[in-house]
Amino acid sequence: MTERVGELRERLAEVVDLRNAGRLLQWDQQTMMPPRGGASRADSLATLERLSHEMFVSAETGRLLEAAEADLNGTPLDSDDACLVRVVTSRWEKARRVPSELAAELAHAGSIGQEAWVEARSKSDFAAFRPHLERNLELARRYVDCFDGFDCAYDALLDDYEPGMKTTEVAALFAELKAELVPLIATIAQRPDAVDASCLHGHFPIARQRHLVAAVVERMGFDGQAWRMDDAVHPFATSVGSADVRITTRWDETYFASGLYGAMHECGHGLYEAGIDPALARTPLGSADSLGLHESQSRMWENMVGRGASFSHYLAPLVAAEFGNGLSGLEPATYYRAVNKVAPSFIRVEADEATYGLHIVLRFELEQELIEGRLAVSDLREAWNARFKEYLGLEVTDDADGVLQDVHWGAGLIGYFPTYALGNMIAGQLWEKIATDMPDRDERIAAGELAPLREWLRENVHRHGSKFRTQELLRRVVGGPIEVQPFVRYLKAKLRDVYGL
Amino acid sequence: MTERVGELRERLAEVVDLRNAGRLLQWDQQTMMPPRGGASRADSLATLERLSHEMFVSAETGRLLEAAEADLNGTPLDSDDACLVRVVTSRWEKARRVPSELAAELAHAGSIGQEAWVEARSKSDFAAFRPHLERNLELARRYVDCFDGFDCAYDALLDDYEPGMKTTEVAALFAELKAELVPLIATIAQRPDAVDASCLHGHFPIARQRHLVAAVVERMGFDGQAWRMDDAVHPFATSVGSADVRITTRWDETYFASGLYGAMHECGHGLYEAGIDPALARTPLGSADSLGLHESQSRMWENMVGRGASFSHYLAPLVAAEFGNGLSGLEPATYYRAVNKVAPSFIRVEADEATYGLHIVLRFELEQELIEGRLAVSDLREAWNARFKEYLGLEVTDDADGVLQDVHWGAGLIGYFPTYALGNMIAGQLWEKIATDMPDRDERIAAGELAPLREWLRENVHRHGSKFRTQELLRRVVGGPIEVQPFVRYLKAKLRDVYGL
Repeated sequence: MTERVGELRERLAEVVDLRNAGRLLQWDQQTMMPPRGGASRADSLATLERLSHEMFVSAETGRLLEAAEADLNGTPLDSDDACLVRVVTSRWEKARRVPSELAAELAHAGSIGQEAWVEARSKSDFAAFRPHLERNLELARRYVDCFDGFDCAYDALLDDYEPGMKTTEVAALFAELKAELVPLIATIAQRPDAVDASCLHGHFPIARQRHLVAAVVERMGFDGQAWRMDDAVHPFATSVGSADVRITTRWDETYFASGLYGAMHECGHGLYEAGIDPALARTPLGSADSLGLHESQSRMWENMVGRGASFSHYLAPLVAAEFGNGLSGLEPATYYRAVNKVAPSFIRVEADEATYGLHIVLRFELEQELIEGRLAVSDLREAWNARFKEYLGLEVTDDADGVLQDVHWGAGLIGYFPTYALGNMIAGQLWEKIATDMPDRDERIAAGELAPLREWLRENVHRHGSKFRTQELLRRVVGGPIEVQPFVRYLKAKLRDVYGL
Repeated sequence: MTERVGELRERLAEVVDLRNAGRLLQWDQQTMMPPRGGASRADSLATLERLSHEMFVSAETGRLLEAAEADLNGTPLDSDDACLVRVVTSRWEKARRVPSELAAELAHAGSIGQEAWVEARSKSDFAAFRPHLERNLELARRYVDCFDGFDCAYDALLDDYEPGMKTTEVAALFAELKAELVPLIATIAQRPDAVDASCLHGHFPIARQRHLVAAVVERMGFDGQAWRMDDAVHPFATSVGSADVRITTRWDETYFASGLYGAMHECGHGLYEAGIDPALARTPLGSADSLGLHESQSRMWENMVGRGASFSHYLAPLVAAEFGNGLSGLEPATYYRAVNKVAPSFIRVEADEATYGLHIVLRFELEQELIEGRLAVSDLREAWNARFKEYLGLEVTDDADGVLQDVHWGAGLIGYFPTYALGNMIAGQLWEKIATDMPDRDERIAAGELAPLREWLRENVHRHGSKFRTQELLRRVVGGPIEVQPFVRYLKAKLRDVYGL
């Protein structure tokens, strides 16, 4: 590392320090903060954001980036330093168009909006939530107005969550996905009683659920020395330092799959952050930027592993032992079929893998209409319910299970949703590649040995942190861009198995 | 408020936002952070400290202070704005002598040292702790060297915890206190079996202790909407926002008094922060600066209320009901005598009120010798043990109960300890004044009605935040400066009662 790259790293380290502080404040807000702490928390988050934004976008950072770039002569393009300069320059060019004051306002409104969402959701009160979403949209539009190089408003937002991705690309992928999912769901809808999921419903004491989940995430790689797991209204994962991963889940005493698969999902995110090369610590590359890639990890652990036939083989006896009673003697095959039952439902995070994509398409469309002003927030509830009926065939009767179910719009995270479905697609591609690289993948998983899979993911995905954009990383690992068909193949194979299609 | 005072407040609000963020990071470090998170946490704390220090000591803050002062013409000296300008100017003049880089180093070393202390204490390993204390002392000396207006090195440190107080003043007060305590303890030492404290020792399930403590602190004013209570290795209290108070305690399954009185102590601190006038929120006056005053609140609730005859009357039946068995039918008089048993012991925070002062005198002396270089850290353990034997008559055999028992030196809080004994003295003065103002004080407390006392404290002490220095506040409330005798009178009366002296 040259002296000038060292100077750049030193400055960026401080930006990362502040980012970590901000993440801890957000984690605390969602897990620990007493209800009345919200106003001060929003102030602290806004000031932190303003300062770190000012520090990052300053001319001095630009000067350091230029100087470091000049020193890269001959450094391989995929070296840490070359990636650092390239990735940070691109972020710097975007961020410096945004006034620090606006960055602070976005942070403030997101924090306040999140508290308002918790309150509104608990009362199913969309009217109370409306002004907060309006405020977040107004700020998002002001944010979009800072740029002139994007094809559409939504591109500017999407790019924050999936760098470099275009709305038109997402729309094309989603159209292909939808075309596959709709007939698949229709076929299954003709056989509503083909799968009996009754083993998942009953009375499951939370303490026992915690015990089961602790055993599962430990097997995945949860490390008590560097991780925590807590409860949250809307489960999430974050890392607040280079060896400080925080995951959360929520519990349903009548349906243990919610806490279990939620925890596996978040643990998948955690493994990504924990698996990044320590050499990238305290640089902006030391945390994973592409939420599409992030969701590929969480959704893979949740569904391809967690709800897979192999892991069901391992899990069913554990579930039976933990909950006893009606579940003793639970057959792996019964359990596997139950956790893969396809049926339209209200809550995205608990949707089966087939209908899940439609939940995302719905949000992706509504978000574009909202940001472009084609849909007013005052009409959102009706639009949600109408489209939900159209796509999923269900009549929403409770906004808490409808338009108010997700934290994102309250927290100002507009443009985030598509990454969940992109994550499924990417996971499909990686899953096929893993099958080739690790012929005994399924046997290992069936034996509860998850370390080989985790190490494959670390080696091929995690360790790179944010060095490569999604398409570049995929090119390196699977040899091409994001594709829909591997996920569809995976899903059809599973449903063939479960439904005897 | 004039426009220029408004501008000053706006700038200071951001300094407060960062202070609150830093406090949350510290709270998390002591309650939630996984062990390996320490390195990143120290980085975040250091960067936060550097930035808020830079922002605070900038010439711009000086200009705003001057401009605001010019606008104060005729504003009463004890108005919020006049106090704000006066208090902040004095802090600014001290802080701007300190390089921001040193401020960051102090924060970094304190955070690292605290983690090292937790580890060293758990293993009673003083040698492992030594380099961290040496580092903290080196930085403290560099900090002291920033100033030239103090009479001695210790003054510069003490002033951070008890603004305006001099080492010579503390020494004089402590000499008077020691002269009272030593013969008192000697008299009681002749009657080692006069008090039976066996009711405090036994097996007390933590869940039941939590239940008892929750009931007690709720009566004191703990408010679940704006407070939290958690576990910590070394109990503490903090506020991380204007309606976000965090207290902590620790539990001993064989001795419930530890958790109970520890929680009452920290709740006393919490009530101070929660009782500050909301008009001072987001200003530096909106948190209480004088730790002497702070300790007067915590020690009053812990000892004068908690271990008082009146509250024992209320508490004994609760204790009996909670723990049952050997405690059913526990007499208030028996309980009262037990919680006031005087006997030299190793741990400061669990010491009785008579020997407590000697624990502080010991630390006050050692700290001065350390900072002045008269005592080397390599000789500290021996010096501690020798002086402990001399003052308290006990042979220290385990460093975890000796020189390693307190978090302060690890966290870099050198100069903090005297405020505990000053707090006792101030509490004695306030307690006498309360007796005059509230003739039914003891009856109310005996009935478990703690609100009137809390409201007296809020009106006379809490609401002012950091508007007044300790001596000025005392002048306003009790008509004079810190004195030793009210505390001594209180203590002698209690021990006369307990020991029949």
